[in-house]
Amino acid sequence: MGDKLTKQQEEHMASFAPLSRVIVTGGTHGDELAGVYLVQKGLVKQPEFLQRETFTAQAIVANPEASRKSCRFVDTDLNRCFTFESLSSSTANSSSYEIRRAKELNHLLGPKGSNEAVDFICDLHTTTANMGTCIIVDSEKDYLSCQAAHYLKEVSTHPCQIMLIKSGTPTFSMMSLAKHYLTLEIGPAPHGVIRADIYNTMKMLVGHLLDFIDRFNKGQEFPAFNMDCFQIERKFDYPRDEDGQLTACIHPKLQDSDFKPLFQGDPIFQSFVSEESICYEAQDPICPIFINEASYYSKGIAFWGTKIQTFEITSIKVSI
Amino acid sequence: MGDKLTKQQEEHMASFAPLSRVIVTGGTHGDELAGVYLVQKGLVKQPEFLQRETFTAQAIVANPEASRKSCRFVDTDLNRCFTFESLSSSTANSSSYEIRRAKELNHLLGPKGSNEAVDFICDLHTTTANMGTCIIVDSEKDYLSCQAAHYLKEVSTHPCQIMLIKSGTPTFSMMSLAKHYLTLEIGPAPHGVIRADIYNTMKMLVGHLLDFIDRFNKGQEFPAFNMDCFQIERKFDYPRDEDGQLTACIHPKLQDSDFKPLFQGDPIFQSFVSEESICYEAQDPICPIFINEASYYSKGIAFWGTKIQTFEITSIKVSI
Repeated sequence: MGDKLTKQQEEHMASFAPLSRVIVTGGTHGDELAGVYLVQKGLVKQPEFLQRETFTAQAIVANPEASRKSCRFVDTDLNRCFTFESLSSSTANSSSYEIRRAKELNHLLGPKGSNEAVDFICDLHTTTANMGTCIIVDSEKDYLSCQAAHYLKEVSTHPCQIMLIKSGTPTFSMMSLAKHYLTLEIGPAPHGVIRADIYNTMKMLVGHLLDFIDRFNKGQEFPAFNMDCFQIERKFDYPRDEDGQLTACIHPKLQDSDFKPLFQGDPIFQSFVSEESICYEAQDPICPIFINEASYYSKGIAFWGTKIQTFEITSIKVSI
Repeated sequence: MGDKLTKQQEEHMASFAPLSRVIVTGGTHGDELAGVYLVQKGLVKQPEFLQRETFTAQAIVANPEASRKSCRFVDTDLNRCFTFESLSSSTANSSSYEIRRAKELNHLLGPKGSNEAVDFICDLHTTTANMGTCIIVDSEKDYLSCQAAHYLKEVSTHPCQIMLIKSGTPTFSMMSLAKHYLTLEIGPAPHGVIRADIYNTMKMLVGHLLDFIDRFNKGQEFPAFNMDCFQIERKFDYPRDEDGQLTACIHPKLQDSDFKPLFQGDPIFQSFVSEESICYEAQDPICPIFINEASYYSKGIAFWGTKIQTFEITSIKVSI
């Protein structure tokens, strides 16, 4: 990083205004305790950790009521409430706590898609899947967020993977309120449990992210690079009976094998009754991620199938 | 097992009537999915698995409403509702679902402490702690249950530990409805997640337990042995602030170290703000178990401190 750029790279450089309003959010899901405790205890009570020369970040609990109860949400998944449609609907007095909170956050941090929106949101999540340290970005066209993800991957002492939401998907997540954003998704951790190792990794990465933004604001140029990432192709659901109940669970050979390629004939599910294996049938290999995430049972997802894609990410610098 | 007994051992032999009413229960906690699915899918739908020559076991979901919702309980922890006091209280129309269900189970499987109670309950549990395969017995004086635990430990292909509730503690668990009982407690598994490896281990152990009871019923004598077990000494709570909120979490060095001895000066907690270690202060070593179990946060338990104790367990045979 910071290497001298070639003329060609300079021509393709993207520039952005300095990032002054930077937000770290935890507790978007109230049972993902590393984020809840990192915001409440590790950041709010240590304001110096959030200070850099060019800005001071703010730490916020996204879903205070669910976080207080250590439950995922009160009425509905907050992290699906941030579509333009939902935010603009005339439901200011909605009976759903999360829909009301989404509008409140849109008022505080948005409005989504506007010039008034905050510059950057880093949203903190954990998963029951063996995802290790994963950085989620929404679009390969958000060069600044992709550069931030790349920076974290380079400086982290832990192996990191970058996951990309499928391009063109309408954004619905809390972080999409900001102009630029990423999610730290770390696992495996049971929901409702705070693991120190995950808390420490999360805190380290937040610190590095704030460093990245500070360097960017001060004029450091981040060169173009080819970003290898896991891009979502499609979801796989569990085998279910006519009542929607699972008839099989993740196969022991697939369990904990997030990011590893799955080939035709590899077992993916184990039937409860016969204990027989149900295998992956497609010819085209796929990399499963979020395997056996607890909150996905009710969403009809056993895992996401992804493919490794490479995108050219343009170099970036601050505009003056 | 089945070795010829010495005269002295025969004199100390305990004898029991054949066990004909044998119950396997899952979903006492509705979010511990291995037990829920093993009962609903692996046992109820495979009745031949429950059949032995001398009896046919019955599989029951203990808390159907919580299991349906994949939540721990609806109103209160069912597994604390089986004290004599609670069962005999005049709260037949209690507003608590679990208190009503406890009375219903007492009617079906008890009455607790009576001759009409079922002979054996095996209750299936999972934990977010790294407990491996653990068999919990209530008292070293219940020779039959201790012999069953020993049998499972011997035949299991996985390492097993035996945990003993402190003698003299009033029994409050669901399984205490039966004349004899034990819990299979397997982890780590997040609550709300079914892991095939744990499901398979649980099913294997249930099969072995039914074999043990069948052998006992048929007259096999089980010789006396010295039972090494982890007996609960006292609970350790998290450091908390004046509002009861955690100010520290389990230290990375203690996390996942269930059953390993803890010595004076070993770190047990990591403070959120300063990240400093809080150490074990007592001179007397202790073995922590159920470290960082999700459902214990609200019960004021970070882990249980246990000591390894050895008890002489008398030989047993069926009475004719």
